[in-house]
Amino acid sequence: MSFESAVNEVVSAIEPTDPAAETAAWERLDNLTKPPRSLGRLEEIAAKVARVQGTDHPDVAKKVILLMAGDHGVVAEGVAMFPQDVTWQMVANFAAKGAAINQIAASVGAEVRVHDVGVAKDISDMGGFEHVKVAMGTANMAKGPAMTREECAAAIMVGVDAARKAIAEGCTLVGIGEMGIGNTTAASALTAAFAGASVEDIVGPGAGATDEILARKIAVIKTALEVNGVSGLDALGVLAAVGGLEIAAMVGVVLACAAASVCVVSDGVISGSAALAAVRICPTAADYVFPSHRSAEPAHTVQLAALAMAPVLELDMRLGEGTGAALTMGIMDAAVRMISGMVTFAEAGVSVPE
Amino acid sequence: MSFESAVNEVVSAIEPTDPAAETAAWERLDNLTKPPRSLGRLEEIAAKVARVQGTDHPDVAKKVILLMAGDHGVVAEGVAMFPQDVTWQMVANFAAKGAAINQIAASVGAEVRVHDVGVAKDISDMGGFEHVKVAMGTANMAKGPAMTREECAAAIMVGVDAARKAIAEGCTLVGIGEMGIGNTTAASALTAAFAGASVEDIVGPGAGATDEILARKIAVIKTALEVNGVSGLDALGVLAAVGGLEIAAMVGVVLACAAASVCVVSDGVISGSAALAAVRICPTAADYVFPSHRSAEPAHTVQLAALAMAPVLELDMRLGEGTGAALTMGIMDAAVRMISGMVTFAEAGVSVPE
Repeated sequence: MSFESAVNEVVSAIEPTDPAAETAAWERLDNLTKPPRSLGRLEEIAAKVARVQGTDHPDVAKKVILLMAGDHGVVAEGVAMFPQDVTWQMVANFAAKGAAINQIAASVGAEVRVHDVGVAKDISDMGGFEHVKVAMGTANMAKGPAMTREECAAAIMVGVDAARKAIAEGCTLVGIGEMGIGNTTAASALTAAFAGASVEDIVGPGAGATDEILARKIAVIKTALEVNGVSGLDALGVLAAVGGLEIAAMVGVVLACAAASVCVVSDGVISGSAALAAVRICPTAADYVFPSHRSAEPAHTVQLAALAMAPVLELDMRLGEGTGAALTMGIMDAAVRMISGMVTFAEAGVSVPE
Repeated sequence: MSFESAVNEVVSAIEPTDPAAETAAWERLDNLTKPPRSLGRLEEIAAKVARVQGTDHPDVAKKVILLMAGDHGVVAEGVAMFPQDVTWQMVANFAAKGAAINQIAASVGAEVRVHDVGVAKDISDMGGFEHVKVAMGTANMAKGPAMTREECAAAIMVGVDAARKAIAEGCTLVGIGEMGIGNTTAASALTAAFAGASVEDIVGPGAGATDEILARKIAVIKTALEVNGVSGLDALGVLAAVGGLEIAAMVGVVLACAAASVCVVSDGVISGSAALAAVRICPTAADYVFPSHRSAEPAHTVQLAALAMAPVLELDMRLGEGTGAALTMGIMDAAVRMISGMVTFAEAGVSVPE
């Protein structure tokens, strides 16, 4: 079976969530010992998790961040501030637990699993992460497709397999995160293609680009969209043409979580482009996606609008790695403990307004 | 010694935080393995905690919510939606761990300590909370002062003692929360007095008031401010005249934390009125206060403006109990683990831009 057929099989297993479960959740929420709706967004989160899990006593105790790493051939165009070596160096840093995601995930009790999906260096002798490399980075999208369709589908299946493994081990809440020098360029190109936005409106500084790099990024993305004839492609074709190996793997995580009725939390602008690609491949997958924070990158706001999703946090973050997803998993944990652990007015013997 | 003298002694022990500690924290933050400032608000929180604790490796591992409960004589004016018995019933619910704060605090690993500072019922035979009652609720502020100065100072000292005990036990992060039917009326009166805002602009629905109750609340607060000649009073006098026993206790927590160089997290509109009162009593105390969320109550936004503080979360919550403080303590935990646990570019051998 081709990788593309395998992806199609995952997609065909995705079913809509049940509105009856959400109705039951709201009935429970309105009877818990607090003024109705006084926990605002926290109640909305609890109701959405309940709908995904099909129960008014949901559970998100076991959490994992699936962090996907990959390199981008487009860095040859001078679109990145940091040298490409930083991708593998940061993978080593994740493995040594020295990075931001290690600390932030620990604060919410989430495990971090790092995957080499497409790092442009042979790091097979290093430990502390999953060796699931599909290619030594993407090709330069300004010259042609970043990946072939089969490479792209293979990277999606890396994410599918990672999610299935975590879910089989009992994970009830999955976050996505990434590392890849140059990947805001790919994410911006995907956003332009999937949301129909102008490139000028969505390109931001990424990990700290200068004005010169910014202008180059805009020109390169426009070239890439044109060279690859992106407007005529299907969603998988767009992802292959201007996406990335780590982005495709995150698409796979989203699709596999949706197929298994598991909540999946997106992070910033890169993972947001993966969530948007997953929803373009399978619109029903949107029911399972929880946005986290609003990244400082303008493309992220365009993605959230295209997904009709409101972020939980607005902390002016723009790091990636799954850091915003991890913080939001903490808020979701609180929301779920609230709906599942609180007692009702009747159970507590607390009076209600006459 | 009078209670008021005891409060003055606490206030005189409060010293400004050291800007050099914050400078050192920013230097460390800018060298950790992430693009400088890419964690936005999280970095600002880390730097402020570092400044309070006087170290660039701060720690907020041991967390406690000091929840203060008290009743309000002003409920005789028909300003509350729920009957007064709900105050003691909810204290029992906190003790049985059935309330929202129990679940939300558990999700961030914070202990909840409940204090009967002024519940209008003898609940001395009940267990699971601290019996530190100063009075059986306040008097009706629409007819005269809610508390005498000594009662108010005694309630402040209840909070001081609770904070000192927690700090002596090793708590490095303290949140404040409350329960008290009718206390949005007191909090709104305090906000009008301390922030110089018009009563119409700050009164909101509290725990779900009807339009009729809302109009009554506005009229009652105006009467209370006038009857007590609030504009001519000092900060302690204002707190005694239109505050509450549980609000005064939270003021004590803020002052004691500031005196001990411990970070204290405010919650919504009631605890916000306590933070504002504490800062009016001792402006330097503001250095130690961390705002949490923006409550749906309009008075809370007025308080935050008066304190020149931006909330961390905006989740449309309006419950109280310390729920917003607890959620924010989770975010602060992530921020502090980040600054204290991450490695620098040099330590990790990660390349930096040329």
